[in-house]
Amino acid sequence: MKIVTIIGAGVMGSAMAFPFSDRGYKVRLVGTHLDSEIIASIKTKQFHPKLNVTLPASVQAYAYSELAVALDDDTDLILLGVSSAGISWALDQLIQFMKQPTPIVMITKGMYAELNSLVTLPDVISKSLAEKFGSGLKIAAIAGPCIAGELAVRRPTGTVIVSHDQSFANQLCRDFETNYYHPRTSDDMIGVEICAAFKNFFAIAVGWAHGYLEQIPTAENKAKNNNAAALIFDQAVRELISLTNALGGQIESVWGMAGVGDLYVTCQAGRNSKLGNNLGRGLTYNQVREGPMMGDTIEGADLGRAAAHTIKLMIENGTLTKRSIPLTLSLLSALSTETPLVMPWKDFHQTN
Amino acid sequence: MKIVTIIGAGVMGSAMAFPFSDRGYKVRLVGTHLDSEIIASIKTKQFHPKLNVTLPASVQAYAYSELAVALDDDTDLILLGVSSAGISWALDQLIQFMKQPTPIVMITKGMYAELNSLVTLPDVISKSLAEKFGSGLKIAAIAGPCIAGELAVRRPTGTVIVSHDQSFANQLCRDFETNYYHPRTSDDMIGVEICAAFKNFFAIAVGWAHGYLEQIPTAENKAKNNNAAALIFDQAVRELISLTNALGGQIESVWGMAGVGDLYVTCQAGRNSKLGNNLGRGLTYNQVREGPMMGDTIEGADLGRAAAHTIKLMIENGTLTKRSIPLTLSLLSALSTETPLVMPWKDFHQTN
Repeated sequence: MKIVTIIGAGVMGSAMAFPFSDRGYKVRLVGTHLDSEIIASIKTKQFHPKLNVTLPASVQAYAYSELAVALDDDTDLILLGVSSAGISWALDQLIQFMKQPTPIVMITKGMYAELNSLVTLPDVISKSLAEKFGSGLKIAAIAGPCIAGELAVRRPTGTVIVSHDQSFANQLCRDFETNYYHPRTSDDMIGVEICAAFKNFFAIAVGWAHGYLEQIPTAENKAKNNNAAALIFDQAVRELISLTNALGGQIESVWGMAGVGDLYVTCQAGRNSKLGNNLGRGLTYNQVREGPMMGDTIEGADLGRAAAHTIKLMIENGTLTKRSIPLTLSLLSALSTETPLVMPWKDFHQTN
Repeated sequence: MKIVTIIGAGVMGSAMAFPFSDRGYKVRLVGTHLDSEIIASIKTKQFHPKLNVTLPASVQAYAYSELAVALDDDTDLILLGVSSAGISWALDQLIQFMKQPTPIVMITKGMYAELNSLVTLPDVISKSLAEKFGSGLKIAAIAGPCIAGELAVRRPTGTVIVSHDQSFANQLCRDFETNYYHPRTSDDMIGVEICAAFKNFFAIAVGWAHGYLEQIPTAENKAKNNNAAALIFDQAVRELISLTNALGGQIESVWGMAGVGDLYVTCQAGRNSKLGNNLGRGLTYNQVREGPMMGDTIEGADLGRAAAHTIKLMIENGTLTKRSIPLTLSLLSALSTETPLVMPWKDFHQTN
């Protein structure tokens, strides 16, 4: 029986236990220091209190203090499921406790902002672990439209498994696919990871449309604001293409599941949308952070704030044009200052 | 003062009266024989009973028996706003009553199925009117994410104006744009019109996901079916690209407002979605037509049924591959037989 060790017992990492179990893997689910209640609940009654489901019998829970045991040399695969904020911690743990060059699959999203460019997390991890394990370590990432709670009750779900090593990606696809979980492969690490990270960022903008509706007078015919949401959604797709082009990815990834598909599902609900709703109501980013969303992790906002300087430099050095990313620039401005988000309608959908 | 004559007083044609009026046009709104109540209401109290709004003072209503007056030789522009089903009637009227080669803008959607290909409605109209007015008649079409009721209360709305004649498209853009209505131009008649027509068709498929949820047991964690909807949405975008490629359009149109943007808004509500919901509940197309949606016009279904034979021929002659349009084929099968819609998940998102 193959063994997968999932690091991070949040909803997404834990939901992945379902396709793994159904394909015959033994699953070791390791919580971080933020997951103590979850791990305790699984240990005592096999119930995941955030997914609100009972996990398969083949899932065994481990506290973070037990990581070394969970990462024992019988582990066939490591799934990295911590949040973006937890990636440094996870990397330290891997360097300390990985005993051999075990293949790694990441579901953590995000881009690392270097001075002049944005680097994907799998490439950061790969580089960091190369010192100990050499450059041949197999690393892949999973992106695509996947709400964890739906995967955890085996609803139809499609994802993209991206790796520089296509035979590894193909093997993972064969090992994970079930009658409800439909992974597909890609070799476009940059394009897929830009989409995976920036879909959260752009979902904030789409959420703006629905919040804005709440603060204007109700129309005679009770019209909503879906035209505006669609216009922003489509501008977001255009700007994902601009960013992907600028950073050397393939635009096919943008209309794939990691791009359009995941943006679609991310706009249906979640914290990024909720931040957008609040900006639409006329609050500034700081007012939202000090009010209705105090303490919440909002990955799209964190990404935007981390990437803002790099994007500015890319414009200065000519890799990106201002004209091709008006929505990105308005959103970055709203996330970095105390002014409301203003939609630059006239600049939308102009030829790049 | 410029004069526009809008033929068809349904919601979409009538909503266009707002940007026209706001840009100084005098608007003549002509009902078809289906619009008698609407025209009576506008004539007596300027109120449009389907849009539920009061029309601007510059809008004057005409019954279809008054079309010749409305199309008098002072008309600067004709907007064709009848439904797809009404296009033959409208064409007959134009041939009979148009006095001079007046520029035409179409908001009617649809494709005309010739034996081996699908032809755009503007090209059909252009060909039909060439006999009387020569080949230089200016024709454009408007596509993009526009819910009429929202445009009629001046919510932010973006559209694409497509024409073989770019100077005409540019002029229309300059003439229509307001601070809430944001048209952009395209010269890709095929790509834009395929998107405009097929987004209705694919919205049926996305609607399936939400209906399906209703007929399966509620999950332990009350999970919805958004992953499935996103997977279908993204497959729809891929297949719009396949159809556009096969028919000689530009794939840029698919990620533009007529494609991804309009598909997004069409999936939020409307009759195509509703048909999809019913198919998801397990009803066959015939059961829906004889039950919950008896008598409704469902443009996506009508298009699919009209285009099915042409699509079959395109596969036979090698213009299209089956492998590139699994969702289209499943949906066509469900629309033409008495079997339920089955999602071919395994065939989704395979390399074309």
